[in-house]
Amino acid sequence: MPTPSSPPLLYLEDLAVGDTFVSPTYALDAQQIVAFATQFDPQPFHMDAQAAQNTFFGGLAASGWHTMGITMRLLVQSFPLAQGLIGASAQLHWPQPTRPDDVLQVTSTIQTITPSRSKPDRAIVEVECITRNQHGAPLQKLVCKVVAFKKPQ
Amino acid sequence: MPTPSSPPLLYLEDLAVGDTFVSPTYALDAQQIVAFATQFDPQPFHMDAQAAQNTFFGGLAASGWHTMGITMRLLVQSFPLAQGLIGASAQLHWPQPTRPDDVLQVTSTIQTITPSRSKPDRAIVEVECITRNQHGAPLQKLVCKVVAFKKPQ
Repeated sequence: MPTPSSPPLLYLEDLAVGDTFVSPTYALDAQQIVAFATQFDPQPFHMDAQAAQNTFFGGLAASGWHTMGITMRLLVQSFPLAQGLIGASAQLHWPQPTRPDDVLQVTSTIQTITPSRSKPDRAIVEVECITRNQHGAPLQKLVCKVVAFKKPQ
Repeated sequence: MPTPSSPPLLYLEDLAVGDTFVSPTYALDAQQIVAFATQFDPQPFHMDAQAAQNTFFGGLAASGWHTMGITMRLLVQSFPLAQGLIGASAQLHWPQPTRPDDVLQVTSTIQTITPSRSKPDRAIVEVECITRNQHGAPLQKLVCKVVAFKKPQ
């Protein structure tokens, strides 16, 4: 639920193609990378810095799903749709691995707004969300479709 | 790292279009749903069964990224590529929400195998992974591209 410091909630009428939202930052560390991987992606290159040396990644790297989880947290903080962020589908690319001590930030840009044919109170909003580290390097590109609702009459 | 009970590791030569892999099962509960959401997707419909009643979901639902995290864990257990599961990209759809007490299982089917033009030791393997609950209802469809390596000569 929004707190007094939350940005105002967004309805469909508040959104336009090209609108951009910049998230707060999130500081990652090796301990978080290992904790996530232990639970959801238990592979050596996400769990053990030593073992990761001789893998594809050449060193400890976060699970792509961990990068996505942090991205989701930052989206909740920066793209406050009135009824919540409800995803119908998503496309993901990871141009390079997320590393320990990366500081993540997400920039989201509305690509398309498609009114629902069957439900006149809502539309599907396609958003491109780029997650970058503190050097500006893109770690993840997410294109997702979320549901936006009109203001109650 | 594989344990004595792990299935044999798979190299590119072991894979063919149409090959199917069935995962173990994973039992979810409300406590896990809330714990994941608190960390990565802090929205009322993923965190509070009471508040979720009056939302789009009509009751507590897991974050789609939680369903994906569990799916990844089950993939690591059931699709043992020799150098690990390294994803380049992914497409996701969630036909219906994952609920408390759902028991998840993933069926993965190889769709295409595309040899790398620049690196003859590997190929991109496209896999469709359907996550179902104990009633057989599809909760998530993932199509991902992973890297498979040839056996060392």
